[in-house]
Amino acid sequence: MQGTVYIVGAGPGDPDLLTIRALRLLESADVVVHDRLVSETVMALVPAGVICIPVGKSSGRHSVPQAEINQILAELASNHRLIVRLKGGDPFVFGRGSEEALFLKERGIAFEIVPGITAALACTAYAGVPLTHRGISRGFRVVTGHLKEDGELDLNWQSLADPETTLVIYMGLASVDRMAAHLIAAGLSASTPAMAIQDGSTLEQHVVKATLASLAARVRMENIQPPAILVIGETVALADELNWFAPQTEYEDESMAVWAGR
Amino acid sequence: MQGTVYIVGAGPGDPDLLTIRALRLLESADVVVHDRLVSETVMALVPAGVICIPVGKSSGRHSVPQAEINQILAELASNHRLIVRLKGGDPFVFGRGSEEALFLKERGIAFEIVPGITAALACTAYAGVPLTHRGISRGFRVVTGHLKEDGELDLNWQSLADPETTLVIYMGLASVDRMAAHLIAAGLSASTPAMAIQDGSTLEQHVVKATLASLAARVRMENIQPPAILVIGETVALADELNWFAPQTEYEDESMAVWAGR
Repeated sequence: MQGTVYIVGAGPGDPDLLTIRALRLLESADVVVHDRLVSETVMALVPAGVICIPVGKSSGRHSVPQAEINQILAELASNHRLIVRLKGGDPFVFGRGSEEALFLKERGIAFEIVPGITAALACTAYAGVPLTHRGISRGFRVVTGHLKEDGELDLNWQSLADPETTLVIYMGLASVDRMAAHLIAAGLSASTPAMAIQDGSTLEQHVVKATLASLAARVRMENIQPPAILVIGETVALADELNWFAPQTEYEDESMAVWAGR
Repeated sequence: MQGTVYIVGAGPGDPDLLTIRALRLLESADVVVHDRLVSETVMALVPAGVICIPVGKSSGRHSVPQAEINQILAELASNHRLIVRLKGGDPFVFGRGSEEALFLKERGIAFEIVPGITAALACTAYAGVPLTHRGISRGFRVVTGHLKEDGELDLNWQSLADPETTLVIYMGLASVDRMAAHLIAAGLSASTPAMAIQDGSTLEQHVVKATLASLAARVRMENIQPPAILVIGETVALADELNWFAPQTEYEDESMAVWAGR
């Protein structure tokens, strides 16, 4: 027997943001190999009796090394029919899904990719921030704030400091001070609206609004914890009007008064 | 009576890539106001008896002007309970969803946003192109190739010409020659792998692989038509290994031989 490995995006946490395809695969899976970032409410959709293997990989903490995850998937494919490899968000956006797919391909194991709603789409939509908006943002960009081993960030700041692009940063809490300083030094206005979104799209969603200059201090003051994204750009100001889903929103009165036009 | 308008992303075309939330809303809608880019197979999920209002907006062709769509939504909210405004892809990515939401907000009409799988995620996943890949791409960027009224493109080419970012261009078929020339002039290698994906994620998916230098000619030769996206970056080369879903893939032998390592 040779099974198929479905590398599936679980979306941002809210199980209603799973795709229909992801739900069907979970319902017919023989085994589910899942990351720590996949929410409990999503895992609750897996039928009783299905083998679940947590591999606990998340930013900065690799409970099971990637090479071992690859081996687990290959072994499962040799004695199961339908293996779901479930990842938070989208498997091809900082999910290492393509590394797992390449490993399987090299061994002749069939795989499919099921995209998921990545945090850059979901968390912004639930916080009321459009990634693009006519006359304000002509595109968006997604990077990580993950630090290199020497503790530095290796990003092209001149390229990133584009006032007409909404910038979304994953895994950026540890480096938010340095990123803001680099972006300001590269020419992005210190008063650019900026936001941190923790647990976006869930009832625990915690949104902090600030400016690029004040974001790092606000993130610390509100004790924002992973998983969180940072969003920087003029479109962030639209959240004052568009925050339809707002369990917890922390305003910073002084700067808000400026960019919210109050 | 005052209804709620759900501004919902329909994803890229494959109805299995709808979110569970989108499906539930379609199943309980009183009215569905939909764009031309929403596929027939998605519209087939709307129960019989539900009023469907096509407003036919797509790139370059505004069958119903935006102001009129806004008015339609506001009027529907005054005499229906649950209105679904269904848009191709994601409503906050070049979908003008935020303009409609602002209009509703100003009139005190309740709205919610339901993110969808945008083409940049779906079409690349189905063509086997990871948006990020360790050691190759550290992020991705989404822009439009839509021309201004004077026929020019207004993009920051220096910022876009980043060899470590996967660049996805929506609505870029008409400007593919100029974009490629601008990116090469700004320093991006002419041999950068590049791809056009028409009808991505559907059985009509048509993928053309090329290099940045040859993309425009290949797009014309293969008669690629909208809806299509362009993808430029080193991660495109991984599609040779990862193209698990490939109803139609056109190779360009000479340059493929180079970047596919054959």
